[in-house]
Amino acid sequence: MEKGKKLSLILFSGDYDKAMAALILANSARELGMTVNIFFAFWGLCLIRDPEKMSLEDKTAFETMFGIAAPNGPEDLPLSRMNMAGLGKAMLKKMMAEHDAPDLTAFLKGAQKKGVNFFICKLSLEIMGFKKEEMIQGSQVLTATEYLQDALDADIELFI
Amino acid sequence: MEKGKKLSLILFSGDYDKAMAALILANSARELGMTVNIFFAFWGLCLIRDPEKMSLEDKTAFETMFGIAAPNGPEDLPLSRMNMAGLGKAMLKKMMAEHDAPDLTAFLKGAQKKGVNFFICKLSLEIMGFKKEEMIQGSQVLTATEYLQDALDADIELFI
Amino acid sequence: MEKGKKLSLILFSGDYDKAMAALILANSARELGMTVNIFFAFWGLCLIRDPEKMSLEDKTAFETMFGIAAPNGPEDLPLSRMNMAGLGKAMLKKMMAEHDAPDLTAFLKGAQKKGVNFFICKLSLEIMGFKKEEMIQGSQVLTATEYLQDALDADIELFI
Repeated sequence: MEKGKKLSLILFSGDYDKAMAALILANSARELGMTVNIFFAFWGLCLIRDPEKMSLEDKTAFETMFGIAAPNGPEDLPLSRMNMAGLGKAMLKKMMAEHDAPDLTAFLKGAQKKGVNFFICKLSLEIMGFKKEEMIQGSQVLTATEYLQDALDADIELFI
Repeated sequence: MEKGKKLSLILFSGDYDKAMAALILANSARELGMTVNIFFAFWGLCLIRDPEKMSLEDKTAFETMFGIAAPNGPEDLPLSRMNMAGLGKAMLKKMMAEHDAPDLTAFLKGAQKKGVNFFICKLSLEIMGFKKEEMIQGSQVLTATEYLQDALDADIELFI
Repeated sequence: MEKGKKLSLILFSGDYDKAMAALILANSARELGMTVNIFFAFWGLCLIRDPEKMSLEDKTAFETMFGIAAPNGPEDLPLSRMNMAGLGKAMLKKMMAEHDAPDLTAFLKGAQKKGVNFFICKLSLEIMGFKKEEMIQGSQVLTATEYLQDALDADIELFI
């Protein structure tokens, strides 16, 4: 057990497989009793969007377009490679199911249940025109400076 | 304040948004009083090319082609995703301007002014056929071994 | 010399240039006398596939297709950018040769000879349907939890 140890992840990517890697590391670290903080930045925000809470109000034209075009929630993320208009991802999901591996949505929910802490990059939220209410519940908004102060305490820091 | 602490970044990517993330982290760390070292490697060198100092002399045919084809300076970097032949990037830059966020060139200049230390990977420089004089001023050439010796002292090390 | 220090890398990417960066860091760290552990996950497994040991037996239909489609060994990895159906990579390899830089296969063999430790992510191996015997010799299978326990001891941890 590794109580008292901390894993700090920046999830910058909005790729299905990279998000999976981040959440597998996060969940495994929780099983070891580590504190786990994920700082969602840029495309990483797409993973924690809640498709049922998408809003088009109070957005500029570009923010509206971006909100529609950018991936919306875990199952909407493309593979980082071999995505092939979704065929590659469908294939990978079938291969995961063949080994009883949970899908990304399950990993995401599991992470929150297990006590992984979710933080949203304030600047990314603002620039992309998302409202905090469009994200899944349980996340806290944080600045880059606050991320750094927290990461200085961490034992492992990774940029994904 | 976090004087005496060090952030060490390898900027490997030549993507506009990843470079932005690196420089935002770097600038925020400087605001906390941290030492910040960025080691530009591979595509990261494209960020610190000075378009006004591009040289075609003393280069092999491939180095010349590469010098022309590879992104040349901050505003030439594509987005890591949704670039759409530059349309996606133009959209993101508009969205940044709507929130008074500086563009990548401004972040880059700001980083140097704030005292972020710039290092260029020696092997990348050689293989890509760039001359140090083609890069913006204020960078020091470093080997991978020297990067490691420096990163061993760092409190946060990230590969971007 | 940095005996007693440890570098821990997760190689998640299956890109030629990213794999090169990882192995250059690994080899340089070994020259400093550091312990170096590379944890190959997801696409990183493609780097350590042995093209002469590819197997199509005991695989599901998807695993077979994936085994054929996914890059098979170091020289099969594409560039992370400007790959241009292999032309970009051929150009980069020519530029590397012009500077007497070893190719990826040579870096890989050199890393093992120098005592870089190779670990394969158990979950990635299972999901992708690869058998350990299809990978190059000298790797040990590890879980994400075991990676974390090892990385907690490391002085530098990077996700590539």
